[in-house]
Amino acid sequence: MNYAEAFCEVETELQTIKNTGKIATYIPELSHVDPRQFGAHLTTINKEHYSLGDSQTKFSIQSIFKVLALTLARGFDEDHLWNRVGVEPSGSPFNSLVQLEYEQGIPRNPLINAGAMVVCDVLLNHLPNPRQDFIKFVRGLAGDTDIDYCSRVATSERLTGHKNAAMINLIKSYGNITHDIDKVLDFYCDLCSIEMSCKQLAQAFLYLATDGVNPINGEMVISARKSKRINAIMQLCGFYDEAGEFAFKVGLPGKSGVGGGIVAVHPDKYSIAVWSPPLNAKGNSFMGMKFLELFTTRTESSIF
Amino acid sequence: MNYAEAFCEVETELQTIKNTGKIATYIPELSHVDPRQFGAHLTTINKEHYSLGDSQTKFSIQSIFKVLALTLARGFDEDHLWNRVGVEPSGSPFNSLVQLEYEQGIPRNPLINAGAMVVCDVLLNHLPNPRQDFIKFVRGLAGDTDIDYCSRVATSERLTGHKNAAMINLIKSYGNITHDIDKVLDFYCDLCSIEMSCKQLAQAFLYLATDGVNPINGEMVISARKSKRINAIMQLCGFYDEAGEFAFKVGLPGKSGVGGGIVAVHPDKYSIAVWSPPLNAKGNSFMGMKFLELFTTRTESSIF
Amino acid sequence: MNYAEAFCEVETELQTIKNTGKIATYIPELSHVDPRQFGAHLTTINKEHYSLGDSQTKFSIQSIFKVLALTLARGFDEDHLWNRVGVEPSGSPFNSLVQLEYEQGIPRNPLINAGAMVVCDVLLNHLPNPRQDFIKFVRGLAGDTDIDYCSRVATSERLTGHKNAAMINLIKSYGNITHDIDKVLDFYCDLCSIEMSCKQLAQAFLYLATDGVNPINGEMVISARKSKRINAIMQLCGFYDEAGEFAFKVGLPGKSGVGGGIVAVHPDKYSIAVWSPPLNAKGNSFMGMKFLELFTTRTESSIF
Amino acid sequence: MNYAEAFCEVETELQTIKNTGKIATYIPELSHVDPRQFGAHLTTINKEHYSLGDSQTKFSIQSIFKVLALTLARGFDEDHLWNRVGVEPSGSPFNSLVQLEYEQGIPRNPLINAGAMVVCDVLLNHLPNPRQDFIKFVRGLAGDTDIDYCSRVATSERLTGHKNAAMINLIKSYGNITHDIDKVLDFYCDLCSIEMSCKQLAQAFLYLATDGVNPINGEMVISARKSKRINAIMQLCGFYDEAGEFAFKVGLPGKSGVGGGIVAVHPDKYSIAVWSPPLNAKGNSFMGMKFLELFTTRTESSIF
Repeated sequence: MNYAEAFCEVETELQTIKNTGKIATYIPELSHVDPRQFGAHLTTINKEHYSLGDSQTKFSIQSIFKVLALTLARGFDEDHLWNRVGVEPSGSPFNSLVQLEYEQGIPRNPLINAGAMVVCDVLLNHLPNPRQDFIKFVRGLAGDTDIDYCSRVATSERLTGHKNAAMINLIKSYGNITHDIDKVLDFYCDLCSIEMSCKQLAQAFLYLATDGVNPINGEMVISARKSKRINAIMQLCGFYDEAGEFAFKVGLPGKSGVGGGIVAVHPDKYSIAVWSPPLNAKGNSFMGMKFLELFTTRTESSIF
Repeated sequence: MNYAEAFCEVETELQTIKNTGKIATYIPELSHVDPRQFGAHLTTINKEHYSLGDSQTKFSIQSIFKVLALTLARGFDEDHLWNRVGVEPSGSPFNSLVQLEYEQGIPRNPLINAGAMVVCDVLLNHLPNPRQDFIKFVRGLAGDTDIDYCSRVATSERLTGHKNAAMINLIKSYGNITHDIDKVLDFYCDLCSIEMSCKQLAQAFLYLATDGVNPINGEMVISARKSKRINAIMQLCGFYDEAGEFAFKVGLPGKSGVGGGIVAVHPDKYSIAVWSPPLNAKGNSFMGMKFLELFTTRTESSIF
Repeated sequence: MNYAEAFCEVETELQTIKNTGKIATYIPELSHVDPRQFGAHLTTINKEHYSLGDSQTKFSIQSIFKVLALTLARGFDEDHLWNRVGVEPSGSPFNSLVQLEYEQGIPRNPLINAGAMVVCDVLLNHLPNPRQDFIKFVRGLAGDTDIDYCSRVATSERLTGHKNAAMINLIKSYGNITHDIDKVLDFYCDLCSIEMSCKQLAQAFLYLATDGVNPINGEMVISARKSKRINAIMQLCGFYDEAGEFAFKVGLPGKSGVGGGIVAVHPDKYSIAVWSPPLNAKGNSFMGMKFLELFTTRTESSIF
Repeated sequence: MNYAEAFCEVETELQTIKNTGKIATYIPELSHVDPRQFGAHLTTINKEHYSLGDSQTKFSIQSIFKVLALTLARGFDEDHLWNRVGVEPSGSPFNSLVQLEYEQGIPRNPLINAGAMVVCDVLLNHLPNPRQDFIKFVRGLAGDTDIDYCSRVATSERLTGHKNAAMINLIKSYGNITHDIDKVLDFYCDLCSIEMSCKQLAQAFLYLATDGVNPINGEMVISARKSKRINAIMQLCGFYDEAGEFAFKVGLPGKSGVGGGIVAVHPDKYSIAVWSPPLNAKGNSFMGMKFLELFTTRTESSIF
């Protein structure tokens, strides 16, 4: 089935499914969003576009930034990054802190909060103007300058993120954070607060479907080998405690955020972004997961 | 680069690498094997074959059986299996037992020991003559009747496997093992003890590259959808605490065993088995991992 | 206030307290007991006796045996016991198995199940006829030959104790159990099944109030130094996850069992046993705890 | 044996024991102390005094302050404290953070760091001038105004205490810290930095041997019941992962600090403080432990 037909059929089928998800409330600013919004956008490596619903409405990308931060860091840091963060799935969330203790402050992978903090610490070594440089990087990937931070969300997260503060202090106690804790946390919360639409996200992640080349300008974002490896990390670690479920049902590398967004990549074919704010019990967009499951089943586009 | 050239080049390159692996000794019978043996075999979906070294020497497949057991169980058990075992990576090994406690006796996935025991328990419900029926199933996949259990290895594992006994008792304490513990453990150790060559293994796993069809006789081993999902589980859970590393460096779904064997599958292309007894610190074949990393890099055959 | 008055007052006060405890059901045979039974008995080192209610009814002493087993083992094993089991509290129960893994099969103390299994393993080295020798030892302490095992309870526990089987297999995997697992578990379950009355228990524990001397015949059960140390272990480890609560509210060394019995010792003064089958959420006798709290408050007999 | 003789003999015996302890270095300021210093002081409830060595040299009391903070908090907070912190031993240190997670931000007891932070948070509710009020309280107990904070140590600890910062953030994420994190941590580090001599400490803890009465002025510091309960908490939780060892070998309620000090109390008889900077592997004064073990053995003054 082609992508247009699949979009159409899945949209219809989703209307028969009761959304039992709940909007994230632990970051107060995120709780104000209208839960009924829904958008999806697919971009192929041949520059075809398929859209659905609120695909041009911007939302908080949250943890999705971690893939972009990792990509940027991999460009700078040839040798040392994998000494400071692993590439293994993290297992169930109940042991996030004990795992950090057990593994002496080395986070399991760069897509959990602890690992992304280490990546932020690395970026602070290399970016002369971290906030500006990072958003410029994202705008370049998306081919769109209308992308920015949301300072209300960043502040809200900074004030209430005691668990993140616990984590970064623990990592620092093992010497695996080099900058001042407040500086890293500020930067981390800024990156979480970036707002993008499905259309922008799909475009921005397309380099992972084209062996690391930005299809807009033909520039190499990252080598083909590193690009494949980032896909591998997304596949294994992109969905917290639901990575297996996502691989199992959707069969694509991807990354979710608590803002309700999910991006997935089919190497050599397309990237797709979907957004629906209510989250399932594991913290991933309830309808986003359903959409992708139905879509990849209909288009038979699992990588497995 | 084509497969034949890649085999040749990788063989040469491997000779320059010092093998720092160690043979598994915790199952006494396994420790007697000659560590210098090395074999590899690739079978394409078009029935091409590529061999290297001791590719027809049989060895103990150990945990590799778990994929075959899961496949057979998925044929019988439509609805209940995923209530009794998860599909998520297990995280670091240090918490195998606490994770079972935390998750009330539901193993994280069917490819860790605990999960495979539950799968064995399921098979005992369905197979009238479990030992004979299972080996017949494997022979059918491999298209070769010269495959059998090794009772010395099974007995050795049974007598020394106190940690497995701890695990199955814990699962049983939560009611997630229905048969007698000794019966399940006997069956489990029998399956671990199956001996196959790289050639036989590559052939036996080829159905996972052909959407579930046995290429020898055209019969459906399992549906295309289930076949993809078993590949997804292998990708996320096939290498204990090195699943991320394997996805990262090799980029194929696969499964290893402490006998030193590894099988990997490239959907729609080929299956490959490699064998070298010494294991790295995470319990996977040291040279097997290297071989597959170099081979998939040269042939650019990562699924990512 | 003297003991007789305190017994009387506490009995009255207990009648105003609603018993929210529940009888243990995980050992089926234990669930048949009449929950309204209640007994208490205090024996002073001067051979005074104070009784209340069903003080001469026998019940399953369960974990209380662990103190007696430790005492007997300390008589035999001068040097090695403390290499095989610790003397530290075990913390919360959720990590019983992970703690054993973390500490390489060395149980935290001899009063948790894991530790008592190691003590049983030690006793099997020294007792020519373990069952007979142990019961003879207990009868000698109690000065009463009318004490025996209950084979129905022992069998019931043996058949349903999968968690204990998990634990002992894990310990054995670290080499800290020398005998056959079934032999140790059988012995352990036998010892749990011993039936004694409050009167017999109070008498049997009196040696811990008299620096190790059996007051009946003047023989030394154990040295004064060891006797003090067993009291210290009881104080810190006698009540699973409620040791602090018991020290805090009762202020005496003691040991509870899931049969609803509790024994406590006031060094140089008395030993006391109390029995009421319904257990609180932490697995200790609800009314037994209340009784001892009120009794020691009234008689001001905390050791602190 | 009387106290004077015991002091004399133990001093001699200690000289034959090789001190394998190491000075704490994780708080840089503490590492400058002369490791050869040794002092001890015992004060009886009858105002007898026994001294040894550097008994009037002041040192950093560190965690010993937790008992004094708990005492002061118990005076203010009648009802709520035990909802916010437990009275159970904490088990092995490896799970300090996971235990906080498992128990939803309720520390196991007030003598571990996490619990003492909650106590500090409580004190900040009640003390108009926390720093001044607390030191005044301590001076009153010791009957000596020559006691103060050491700002160098407080600052050193504040700057390097990332693990404490991790802990308090985690507790705050569960809502169990009400004040600003920096304010609580500052206060906590101040209290750790108090400097006292053995003589001052022995005097300051004497109220726990006299049912809560300050023997200097006859004022009630705390009720007899609460005094007994603080002793019980010290007995079970005063020595991190060596509480059992201390109860077992010394047999008195006590509290240690990483500055090398230990205080112990024999209810109705005496309090004793000992100081020697090098710590054993569990973080308690190596020689301090030895001294108390030998002293209580010789004077037969275990409470058990």
